[in-house]
Amino acid sequence: MNGGKPLKVALLGCGAVGSQVARLLSEQANDLSVRVGAPLELAGIAVRRLSHQRPGIDPALLTTDAVGLATRPDVDIVVEVIGGLEPARSLLLAAMKNGKSLVTANKALLAEQGEEIHAASREHGADLYYEAAVAGAIPLLRPLRESLAGDTVHRVLGIVNGTTNFILDRMDTSGADFSDALEEAQALGYAEADPTADIEGFDAAAKATILAGLAFHTRVTAADVHREGITEVTAADIASARQLGRIVKLLAICERSGSGVAVRVHPAMIPRTHPLAAVGGAYNAVFVEAASAGSLMFYGAGAGGTPTASAVLGDIVAVARNRLAGTRGPELSTYAELPVLPMGDTLTRYHVSLDVDDRPGVLAPVAEAFARHGVSIQAVRQASRGDEAQLVIVTHEARDAALAATISELTTLPAVRAVASVMRVEGEEEPS
Amino acid sequence: MNGGKPLKVALLGCGAVGSQVARLLSEQANDLSVRVGAPLELAGIAVRRLSHQRPGIDPALLTTDAVGLATRPDVDIVVEVIGGLEPARSLLLAAMKNGKSLVTANKALLAEQGEEIHAASREHGADLYYEAAVAGAIPLLRPLRESLAGDTVHRVLGIVNGTTNFILDRMDTSGADFSDALEEAQALGYAEADPTADIEGFDAAAKATILAGLAFHTRVTAADVHREGITEVTAADIASARQLGRIVKLLAICERSGSGVAVRVHPAMIPRTHPLAAVGGAYNAVFVEAASAGSLMFYGAGAGGTPTASAVLGDIVAVARNRLAGTRGPELSTYAELPVLPMGDTLTRYHVSLDVDDRPGVLAPVAEAFARHGVSIQAVRQASRGDEAQLVIVTHEARDAALAATISELTTLPAVRAVASVMRVEGEEEPS
Repeated sequence: MNGGKPLKVALLGCGAVGSQVARLLSEQANDLSVRVGAPLELAGIAVRRLSHQRPGIDPALLTTDAVGLATRPDVDIVVEVIGGLEPARSLLLAAMKNGKSLVTANKALLAEQGEEIHAASREHGADLYYEAAVAGAIPLLRPLRESLAGDTVHRVLGIVNGTTNFILDRMDTSGADFSDALEEAQALGYAEADPTADIEGFDAAAKATILAGLAFHTRVTAADVHREGITEVTAADIASARQLGRIVKLLAICERSGSGVAVRVHPAMIPRTHPLAAVGGAYNAVFVEAASAGSLMFYGAGAGGTPTASAVLGDIVAVARNRLAGTRGPELSTYAELPVLPMGDTLTRYHVSLDVDDRPGVLAPVAEAFARHGVSIQAVRQASRGDEAQLVIVTHEARDAALAATISELTTLPAVRAVASVMRVEGEEEPS
Repeated sequence: MNGGKPLKVALLGCGAVGSQVARLLSEQANDLSVRVGAPLELAGIAVRRLSHQRPGIDPALLTTDAVGLATRPDVDIVVEVIGGLEPARSLLLAAMKNGKSLVTANKALLAEQGEEIHAASREHGADLYYEAAVAGAIPLLRPLRESLAGDTVHRVLGIVNGTTNFILDRMDTSGADFSDALEEAQALGYAEADPTADIEGFDAAAKATILAGLAFHTRVTAADVHREGITEVTAADIASARQLGRIVKLLAICERSGSGVAVRVHPAMIPRTHPLAAVGGAYNAVFVEAASAGSLMFYGAGAGGTPTASAVLGDIVAVARNRLAGTRGPELSTYAELPVLPMGDTLTRYHVSLDVDDRPGVLAPVAEAFARHGVSIQAVRQASRGDEAQLVIVTHEARDAALAATISELTTLPAVRAVASVMRVEGEEEPS
């Protein structure tokens, strides 16, 4: 069974993920050979600098000629773990044109230029697998693309960025404010020196793009995603959420909304009883609601060299099996062509905390402001603090634009001293 | 894309799952057609009695000739949702012999006679998919078989029976004893009139058999599984677990242990902080530990007609795509051929609660009994209750046979009035 001709693997990139892929290909060679039906042989590793120290990697495999390696006639499978747009894009396109099967972990490229990449995969009949691009080790794309192929997905709610989850988790458990929690995350290696991609939600938005496309069989690009990071989440927001039995998480949300789909990344309050609420530290988890399957959740390590390499290896086995069988995996289907709604048209719920005068007659003008914009209030709670009072309002579902307009108006009311916090509420049944 | 020749589906069984499969095939026809690349057409439904009322099912599709339907020359895909050993076994074998692709939800058959069924699938080159056989709607077998194909699974810990999870959940939240909680489960439809298969662990053991085979690439049959149900779990066990920050769950456990694999189903105490601890009611969840991926968890509805039908539909789409591509899914691999260890050789930890005399000098003979069997004690807690005391002992890992022998000896000690409870402890790092 494993006596067949070896399948040759070209590895593009040898960083945290790539070095682990190389190690596992060697350490697991016997198992992989039986599971695939032929040995997998590492044909070469494209790197930027040959001089780097790479313990455990045979220097003879290294090359700086990534294009040459990706298109080498004897290579069957190209694994791209460089990340970013270029040169990854050109390398993938060249490899597919040359009949290679592709495995990539490149979320940014798929989110920004997925259409071109998928079109090339179709044109050249090339396998294109990318389980590692979203939520690291967690098997998620294969279940969405294959296990739920006979179901209708309504909503995907995911914690898909470990750095921000670690920060929010610290803020929740220790009462720290954002900048202290970020510093701690950086000290522990959970956040990079330049944390922008994580804390501003770019990373989560790229993953939301990919998830929405798979879940709704619709073309979605990064520009379609409404994105807010966590830099403006305050210790007061976290405390206010806690008082109401909720917790703040940065969520990637993909959902059917009205006649289209809404794709967004923003901090939100979810009930502490929601399965996602217990996802702590740098873990990831994705909650899927489907018409027949009901609620599903997938949980695990969302990043890290070795966990991500596990997902890459699973894809390598899949494309290798396909290659031996002379077939390929299911294409990305975009037949549904649902419109991606602008954020203003998306239905959401708001949690609003106001600092108001502590005197009778304050609630009426506030309630009128909501009513004028057609926003229905679900719950109000008022707490006195000296001559000031805190007024917390949670709304029913409404168009996001109507909610935003309400907030604008609240800031103009004489009785409202400040809008202390505004945050969306997710993961709850719409109360009646 | 969906203009191809229809693929014809024969449905064997029209109960809770079958009727939902029939409904979804009809309601989702357009989506399924695009996703598969050809329309799926329900060719017929084999039932035991034609006289039954079946709302929404076209009576012209019904037949009592299951063999005739499963082997009909125009049928491409046979879906078996009858359950049990016969006639399901004969029907599957006949269908594969006649070149059909197979989808089944039959855990009992795969656990008891999986070897024969898989051998027939290999011999006839027939696809055999059975995602719905374990944990209902939760995509679990495909991730194990494909996503983790490049990884090494160390352990699978699963809550795979909703009935027993509901009962234990009720006992934990309300303090009810087993018989009251069972009665409530029966009244609510979560337990059958004859609950034996669930409460004695047979259902969970069948699922453990299937999971262990996939996780360890090893032949496992139902007879290899050590099985204990929940009928002897007492309110006192539950209370004692709670005092120690643990909760009692019926677990299906598949793990590498020493030189082989251990497969077992029994109630166990797990820490309340473990992701499985929060899985309440009739939900299922499976926790997987793999060398590279780390800890993963899959959560969702483990039973019910519609959720299970979602998994069946996903498999129908997969085998239909394979059929159109002239290929088939990965075969069950059993190359590792690891020995399945007898329970006595399995490494476990015990939680033991003893009623003892409340006087000095009791602990010494108890500790000696453990030591004589080579069992190391991790923690001891003693609470006085009048002239009697409760002594709770949690052990380090040891051979199950040594632990069982220790318990036998404890019952003979003069100072020990009764062994009040013995339960295994799982899901914790072995403390040092």
